[in-house]
Amino acid sequence: MASHDYVHGYSERESVRLSDQANTLEELLHSDTKYPAGSKVLEAGCGIGAQTIILSRNSPHAQITSIDISEESLDKARRFAAKEEVQNVQFRVESIFDLPFEDESFDHVFICFVLEHLNEPVKALASLRRVLKKGGTITVIEGDHGSCFTHPETGAGVKAWNSLVEVQAKLGGNSLIGRQVYPLLKRAGFTEITVSPRMVYSDSSRPQMEEGFVKRTIIPMVEGVRESAIEMEIIDAETFDRGIEDLHRTAEEFGTFNYMFFKGVGRK
Amino acid sequence: MASHDYVHGYSERESVRLSDQANTLEELLHSDTKYPAGSKVLEAGCGIGAQTIILSRNSPHAQITSIDISEESLDKARRFAAKEEVQNVQFRVESIFDLPFEDESFDHVFICFVLEHLNEPVKALASLRRVLKKGGTITVIEGDHGSCFTHPETGAGVKAWNSLVEVQAKLGGNSLIGRQVYPLLKRAGFTEITVSPRMVYSDSSRPQMEEGFVKRTIIPMVEGVRESAIEMEIIDAETFDRGIEDLHRTAEEFGTFNYMFFKGVGRK
Repeated sequence: MASHDYVHGYSERESVRLSDQANTLEELLHSDTKYPAGSKVLEAGCGIGAQTIILSRNSPHAQITSIDISEESLDKARRFAAKEEVQNVQFRVESIFDLPFEDESFDHVFICFVLEHLNEPVKALASLRRVLKKGGTITVIEGDHGSCFTHPETGAGVKAWNSLVEVQAKLGGNSLIGRQVYPLLKRAGFTEITVSPRMVYSDSSRPQMEEGFVKRTIIPMVEGVRESAIEMEIIDAETFDRGIEDLHRTAEEFGTFNYMFFKGVGRK
Repeated sequence: MASHDYVHGYSERESVRLSDQANTLEELLHSDTKYPAGSKVLEAGCGIGAQTIILSRNSPHAQITSIDISEESLDKARRFAAKEEVQNVQFRVESIFDLPFEDESFDHVFICFVLEHLNEPVKALASLRRVLKKGGTITVIEGDHGSCFTHPETGAGVKAWNSLVEVQAKLGGNSLIGRQVYPLLKRAGFTEITVSPRMVYSDSSRPQMEEGFVKRTIIPMVEGVRESAIEMEIIDAETFDRGIEDLHRTAEEFGTFNYMFFKGVGRK
């Protein structure tokens, strides 16, 4: 993937969305990842550093190397990390497919919301496996846009949602990848693989999820592909906008929203 | 719903499937439902008694009344209960919509895999609410066939799966009801509603789920609508059979299968 093909784009709004997402989902996705003091951790595809800050906070005495292919994203990540007074992270512009590290350089590898954007995810995992020590672990976190179902569920809402899936597919990614975390890790040669699905469910008894996840993470994510989806003739503007309105109803009094993340851990 | 319209039919095979399902899913769905000694519990729509046995085992000193509209199902439930030496259940042929009990007769109501078959689920819940004591609870368990996603996911597999949804819809039911448990309870006037989604996820590290859930529960359930779906011209035989083959691949080495149940509790 060329960095400019990143489905979510690189706007300021997108930076806010990723941070909102990480804050809302932090406990659900990250609370069980803590690396020991002194361990060397590679974060592959750190983007603007939304997950980096959490990794650093949960493993303050690990030595974290966070790489990304986009210089622009890394600049934001560096500023974000400085603001958060992160001490144990080194940022480097590198490609997952051409890692400048020796074999078995790291105790652990962490990769979150990255494989979905790559057209050769097994090759990426195999490349990461090379730099992992024997006995070390890889942690993979991905969502799956095919896991989404809502009430109410309207034709326009489904079409707007699916335009997100299709735009990402046209950019060479796969937003239906969460369900494949287990087979991908297996094909890349990892063992002792365990995958745990992590459900996000909201109804009006869970206003924090409706606000933080549906309204501030999910809907802006869909809105972010509006122009691309219309330009690619995946959907027309009128249907898209009606779909966004309908998605808002899933976070109202009688609405519900469901989405699944997958967290997998494998060993070399 | 007339009893002969029950989407899954009343065959012996279906009886086995429901029992398999309950055994596999018992811990996931039922382990947190335990009623106090002496409490009066109404199980609405007990069918052949698959859940009744579990209810009785988990609450051996509660007084359970289990009703169903089908005399034939109740006969099986009675035999099943006798075989399992169930002591605390009284079976009666009754309609949820015309309950012969006085207002506030029960401490608790339990209803599992029933609302999906009714075309007036809120009316059913309101009828059950009438016979519930003030402060008593209702527990609702439903699946949601729109929550299913698999790897691999093929056109034929999706069509076979969707034929199950469409047959049930033509019989006046709604197999996409799990996501609506919260709003249905709310519309029926219950308060303090909490809904917890319960994920079933299988990959080849979870052979018990692949065998017990995908191969012995899910696929036979889809196969059960084969004749109806073909007769209703929802799908042709060739596509259906190919779809079933494809669904089997989701329980093989690189396959994954995902499905969501919803358990809701509300108070009167």
